[in-house]
Amino acid sequence: MGRLSELFEPDTVAVVGATDREGAVGRAILENLSSGFAGEVVPVNPNRDTVLGLECYADLESAPAVDLAIVIVPPLVVLETLREIGEAGTENVVVITAGFSETGVEGAERERELREIAETYDLNVVGPNSLGVMSTPVGMNATFGPENAREGSISFMSQSGAFITAVLDWANEQKIGFRDVVSLGNKSVLEETDFVREWGDDPDTDVIIGYLEDIDAGEEFVRAARAVSDETPIVLVKSGRTDAGAHAASSHTGAIAGSERAYETGLQQAGVLRAESVQELFDYARALSGLPLPESGDVAVVTNAGGPGVLTTDAVGDSSLEMASFADETLKTLTESMPEEANIYNPIDIIGDADVERFGQALDTALADPNVGSAVVVSAPTAVLTYDKLAEVVIETRERHGKPVVASMMGGDRARAAEEVLREFGIPNYFDPARAVSGLDALARYRAIRNRSRDEPTTFDVDRERVREILERTTSRPGNRLGIESMDLLEAYGIPTPAGSVVDDPKKARDVAESIDGDVVMKIASPEISHKSDIGGVKVGVPDENVYDAYEDLVTRARNYQPDARVLGVQVQEMLEIDESTETIVGMNRDPQFGPLLLFGLGGIFVEILEDTSVRVAPIGESEAREMVDGLTAAPLLAGARGREPADIDAVVESIQRLSQLVSDFPAILELDINPLVAGPDGVQAIDLVLTVDTEKL
Amino acid sequence: MGRLSELFEPDTVAVVGATDREGAVGRAILENLSSGFAGEVVPVNPNRDTVLGLECYADLESAPAVDLAIVIVPPLVVLETLREIGEAGTENVVVITAGFSETGVEGAERERELREIAETYDLNVVGPNSLGVMSTPVGMNATFGPENAREGSISFMSQSGAFITAVLDWANEQKIGFRDVVSLGNKSVLEETDFVREWGDDPDTDVIIGYLEDIDAGEEFVRAARAVSDETPIVLVKSGRTDAGAHAASSHTGAIAGSERAYETGLQQAGVLRAESVQELFDYARALSGLPLPESGDVAVVTNAGGPGVLTTDAVGDSSLEMASFADETLKTLTESMPEEANIYNPIDIIGDADVERFGQALDTALADPNVGSAVVVSAPTAVLTYDKLAEVVIETRERHGKPVVASMMGGDRARAAEEVLREFGIPNYFDPARAVSGLDALARYRAIRNRSRDEPTTFDVDRERVREILERTTSRPGNRLGIESMDLLEAYGIPTPAGSVVDDPKKARDVAESIDGDVVMKIASPEISHKSDIGGVKVGVPDENVYDAYEDLVTRARNYQPDARVLGVQVQEMLEIDESTETIVGMNRDPQFGPLLLFGLGGIFVEILEDTSVRVAPIGESEAREMVDGLTAAPLLAGARGREPADIDAVVESIQRLSQLVSDFPAILELDINPLVAGPDGVQAIDLVLTVDTEKL
Repeated sequence: MGRLSELFEPDTVAVVGATDREGAVGRAILENLSSGFAGEVVPVNPNRDTVLGLECYADLESAPAVDLAIVIVPPLVVLETLREIGEAGTENVVVITAGFSETGVEGAERERELREIAETYDLNVVGPNSLGVMSTPVGMNATFGPENAREGSISFMSQSGAFITAVLDWANEQKIGFRDVVSLGNKSVLEETDFVREWGDDPDTDVIIGYLEDIDAGEEFVRAARAVSDETPIVLVKSGRTDAGAHAASSHTGAIAGSERAYETGLQQAGVLRAESVQELFDYARALSGLPLPESGDVAVVTNAGGPGVLTTDAVGDSSLEMASFADETLKTLTESMPEEANIYNPIDIIGDADVERFGQALDTALADPNVGSAVVVSAPTAVLTYDKLAEVVIETRERHGKPVVASMMGGDRARAAEEVLREFGIPNYFDPARAVSGLDALARYRAIRNRSRDEPTTFDVDRERVREILERTTSRPGNRLGIESMDLLEAYGIPTPAGSVVDDPKKARDVAESIDGDVVMKIASPEISHKSDIGGVKVGVPDENVYDAYEDLVTRARNYQPDARVLGVQVQEMLEIDESTETIVGMNRDPQFGPLLLFGLGGIFVEILEDTSVRVAPIGESEAREMVDGLTAAPLLAGARGREPADIDAVVESIQRLSQLVSDFPAILELDINPLVAGPDGVQAIDLVLTVDTEKL
Repeated sequence: MGRLSELFEPDTVAVVGATDREGAVGRAILENLSSGFAGEVVPVNPNRDTVLGLECYADLESAPAVDLAIVIVPPLVVLETLREIGEAGTENVVVITAGFSETGVEGAERERELREIAETYDLNVVGPNSLGVMSTPVGMNATFGPENAREGSISFMSQSGAFITAVLDWANEQKIGFRDVVSLGNKSVLEETDFVREWGDDPDTDVIIGYLEDIDAGEEFVRAARAVSDETPIVLVKSGRTDAGAHAASSHTGAIAGSERAYETGLQQAGVLRAESVQELFDYARALSGLPLPESGDVAVVTNAGGPGVLTTDAVGDSSLEMASFADETLKTLTESMPEEANIYNPIDIIGDADVERFGQALDTALADPNVGSAVVVSAPTAVLTYDKLAEVVIETRERHGKPVVASMMGGDRARAAEEVLREFGIPNYFDPARAVSGLDALARYRAIRNRSRDEPTTFDVDRERVREILERTTSRPGNRLGIESMDLLEAYGIPTPAGSVVDDPKKARDVAESIDGDVVMKIASPEISHKSDIGGVKVGVPDENVYDAYEDLVTRARNYQPDARVLGVQVQEMLEIDESTETIVGMNRDPQFGPLLLFGLGGIFVEILEDTSVRVAPIGESEAREMVDGLTAAPLLAGARGREPADIDAVVESIQRLSQLVSDFPAILELDINPLVAGPDGVQAIDLVLTVDTEKL
C-alpha cells in the first residue's frame, strides 16, 4: 500500500461513472467536486462526450493520468473498473458503489475479489459502499452528501455514511471545521488503522475522531493508535456498546460483535478517548482542537452565580479533574481585589454585581496561580454584565496565560454572539456547565495518555520447546483440551507449581507420594472433567499409606460419573499450607478482534458473584500487569487487609506477565485458565490448569 | 400557614420599597410587575407620592389591602415591615432583601426573628434573599430578574436566584414555558416541601422541577413528595453530589451538607427523578411536560440511517428502556410495505432513500404494535427527505396512536424549523439521539414511580416499655453508649439473640453457663470497648469448668488494656453452629436531614473493603426491606450460591423491618449496629450490639 496522502491531496481526480442525470450519485459527486476543488476533475463515462460542461472520457485508458479515482459504476462493473484503474497506474480509489458484503453471499464474494484486485495492483481502496472522502485544504468534496465541510483541524472517519451527512450539517451550523473526512464503507481494504496512521503523520490534523461499529484488526489497531496518541488525540464512538446496540450493529454492517470488554480495554490500552454519545464526541473534539493541554488536572472555577458554581464543582467532582487549592499569594490578591462578600476559595464566587472587569481580574489571578492547570468561567446574566465584552476578556486572559479555559455563559439569545466569538478562539461555551467541564476533562485525560509511562513487555527466560512439545500432544490424541497433566507447561514459563506429577497406576502414585513430604492432594487427571470436585475427583490430605486405594477410588468415580471422559491417570501433588494465602484466577481467551485477552481476579465468589475482574490485551508490561492487580475492588485483600499477612504481589504480577508472554508466543493456545493461582506471603503456586489448543496453529 | 395559591394568584400586590431610582431592585420589580400582571400593583414608600406613574402609599396601613407583599426594604427595616404586613392581614410575603443567615451571626439572628414574626402572624414568607416569584397564568413577574417566563405547565423552584435568571433566558430561546417560578432564597419559612405540596395540588402543573442545595426537613419532604409523585412528576437537581460540590454548596448558602448517600436514597424513596446536570433536568422536564406516559418501557426505533440507529439502540441499552420485540403482524406489515433492503427488526432501518411517506408508514406500523410502548424517530438528512414535512407526519402519527414519540432529526440549520414545530407539539428533538432517548427514559422511569407498590410499614407486636427502661439506663450512668448488656432490647423488638446474659461475677457466670447446653462464648461487657476481639475480650468454646477462670481473665484483660473503660461484667452466651451461616450487618444512623438511615450488608470484607451495602430511610415496609437484601451485589451468597444452603432471607427481611420500627419508635437512638446478625437456614441471631443514645430525647 502506498502513501495515503495522495488520497487526500490529489492533483487530478477521475469520477468513473460521472453523469448529468438529475438525482444520480454520479452527478452529485461531480457537482460537489467541481465546486471548490483546487485540482482537475476528469469525468469518465463511455456514453457521454461532456458532463456538466467537462470533457468526458470513455475509459481510464484514454483519460489523462489521475491520482484518485472515484468509482460509481454499477456493482457488476466495479471489479473490471478496478482492474482498469490498476492498469492505468492510479493508486487511490474510492468505491462509492454499494452491493457488496452488506448484501449477502454474492456481494461478499464480489468484495473478496475486490480485495484480491487491490492487492494485485497495490491499490488504496476506500469502501465499497462509501459516501466518499473530503479534504478541505484542497477544497475536495468527493462525496455525494448534501453538505461540504468547513475547514478545520479535525480529521474524521465514519463507518456510517449517514452519520457523516448528519454531522456535517450540524457542524457547519456549529462552525466546527474538518481537515479530512472519510466514509469507511465496508472497509474491504483501507480501514480505521490506516487512517489513524495517516492522520497521526499529518501535522495539520490536531484531533482524530471516528464513529466505528467494529475494529477489524484489533491488535494492529492498538499498536498503531498507541504510537499516534503520543502526539495526536484520538476520540472514538465505538457503537454496539450495549447488548442491544451490538445486535443492531451486527445487523447493520454485518460487523462481528466482539466482546465489549475487549473493546473497552483495547481502546483504553491504545490511548483512545472513548466517547459514549455524539454530543460527547464533539464536546471532546472541540476542546482538544481548540485549546492547549493543561499542565495539571487542577481546575479553578470563576463565577458570578453561587448555584451554577456549585453545579460546576459537582461536574469537576464527576470528572478526572480536581478543584485546585489556591496558593497563598492568590488568596491574598483575591482578598484585596474582590468585594468582601465574595468567596475567594475555589469556586471563586465574585457575586451577582460583578462586572466584566471583576471577572477578568479574578480569572487573571486564578490563571496566574501555579496550582491552577485550567479554568471554567461560569456566569448568569445580570444587568451589569455584557456577555460579548466578557467573552473578549476571557479570550484575552486565556491567551495571556496559555492555559486552557472553558466557559458556561448561561443564557439563551443573549449568550449566542459571545458563544460564537469564544468558539472562534477555541473556547467551548455551553449552557450546561457540566458540558464545559467535560471538555476540560478530555484535555486532562489526553494529557494523562500522553504522559503515560509505557514499559515494554519483559522477556523472561523460558523453555519454549518444552511448551511446544506439550501442546503438540493434542495432535496425537482426540480432543484439544489439556489439563493438570500439562502443568509442566507453566513450569517451563516460570510459573511455580507444587511438587508432584500425573501417574497412571496406583503403585506409581504411592511412589510419588513417598517422595513428597507429608500428606498429598490427589486429583483425577482428565481434560474432559473440568469440575473435578463436583464428582468427588479431588482428595485432600491423603497420607502415603492411603494413596494406593485413593487412586483406585478416584478412577472408579471418574468412570462412573463421566464414562466418556478420557482418564489420563491421577495427579499426586504436594499439599500447600494455604491458610495465609488467597486464591486468584489468571486466565486468557482470544477475542476475535483484539486477540489474547488476559483476565485476573480473586477466586470463588469474587469472580463468580461479584464479577470483580480486570482484563488487558496481551502482551503487557509490568505496569499494566500491576494495574490488573491493583484495579480489583478486592485488591486490599491481597495487600493484607483485615490483619492478614500481605501476599507476594510482585510474584502475582510476574505470573501475569509470564502468562502474557506464553500466550503471545503460542497463538495456538486458544484459552487458558490457572484456577487457582494461590498467592501467599512467600510467592505463588499454580494449583490447577486447563487450556484449549488450536492444533492448526501449532 | 394558609393556602399558598394566593401567593401565585394574588389580585393585589404591594411592592414595599418601590422606587423609580435607575438600577434599584425596587424599580426593577415594579417594572416587571407593571408589565403584564392581571391584578393591581400597589407601591409602598414613605418618601414618594407616585412611583413610575402609580400612586404610592406611605405604609401598608394606609394602602389598600393586598394579597401579596414584596419586601425590598433595607435589612434593618425588614422585621418591622413584616410586623406591619402581619397587622394589615396580608398572608403572603416575598422578602427580596438579603443580609440574613447568609451573612453571618447578626444576619442569622435577624432571620430567627423573622421566623418568629412569621409564626406569630401566620405568614407565608418566601426568602429572604430571594429573586422573587412568578406566575405566568396571571402574568405576574415579581422578580428583579431581566427575563420574564413564557407560559407553560412546568413549575420551578430554585435555591439559587442566579440559576433562575440563567434558565429563563435560555428557556425563552428554547420555547420552554413555566407556570410558577419561585426563588427559594434562604428558605427561612417556606421551603421545598411547601411548594411540592402546593404544585402537587395544582391541576395545571404537569411537572415540578427544582434546583436544590439542601433539603431542610428530609423526612417531611419524603412524605410529601411520595404523595405528590403519584400524580405529578418531580425532577430535581440536588447539587453538592460530589465531595467537592458539597463543600462548595456549604460555603455558598451555608447549607449543612447531609450525606449524599442519604439524599440519594431519600429522593429515590420519595419518587423524585434526580437529574445530574442542567441539561438532564430540562431534557426530562421537556419530555414529561409534553408527552403521555408509555404503557411499557419497550421502544421502537425508526431510522433512515444505520449508524445513528445503532447509536440510538446503545442509548436504549444504557437506559431503563428496552428494545421492543415486534409482533408477527408488525413484521408482516413491514415486510410488505418496506423495500427489500430495509431491516424490519428493531431498530427499523428504512434505508437512505426513504421519503417522508415511508417514514410515516414505518412509524405508524411500529406504534400500532401492542408490544411497543414508545418510539424514537432518527434521521440523517438526505436529498429525498424534507424535515419540515417529516415533523408533520411524526406529530400526526404520534397523536393518532397516543403513545410518546421523541425525535433526533440530525442536522443543523435544516433541522431547526422542524425541531421547533416538533417541540411545539410536545415532541423533544435533539441532534444527539441519546438525548432524545433520555427523555423517553424519564417517562418510563416516572411510569415506574407511579406504578410502584407501596406497602405500609408492618407494625410488629413489641415490648416498647422494656426498651424504654433499657435506654433510660444511660441517664443514670456516665456515657451514652450501650453494648451487649442491652441485648434484651433486641429481644423486646423480636430480633432473636442467642441464650445467655451479662453477669458481674464469676460464680454467676458459671451458673449461666451451666444453664446453657454445651460450651459457651464469653465476651467482656463494656460499652467503651468496641473492638472486643482486638484486646482479647472474647473467648469462644469455653467449657463450663473453665468459665470461672475465663471470667477473671477477661476482666483483667479489659482493665489492663483499657483502664478507663467501665466494665459491666461478662456476657455468657450460647455458642451457635455458624458453619452454614452468613454474617450480616444491620445498622442505623441518623442523617441530619433525612433522619434514621438503615444500613444492611454482609459482614467483614463485604462492608469494609467492597463497600457493598444498601441503605433506606426508615420507616420502611416489607418490600423495601427486601430490596435492601436483594440490592446487594453479594446477595446471591445469602440465597445459596456456590452450593451453600440458602439462608432464611425472610428472617433477615423481618429483622430489618423490626429495626426500622425500633428506630422510628425511639428517636433517642442515635446510632445502632447489630454486627453480626448471623443468618442461617433456620433464621437469624443477633450476636453483638452497640448503640448510642441521645438522653435528651428520652
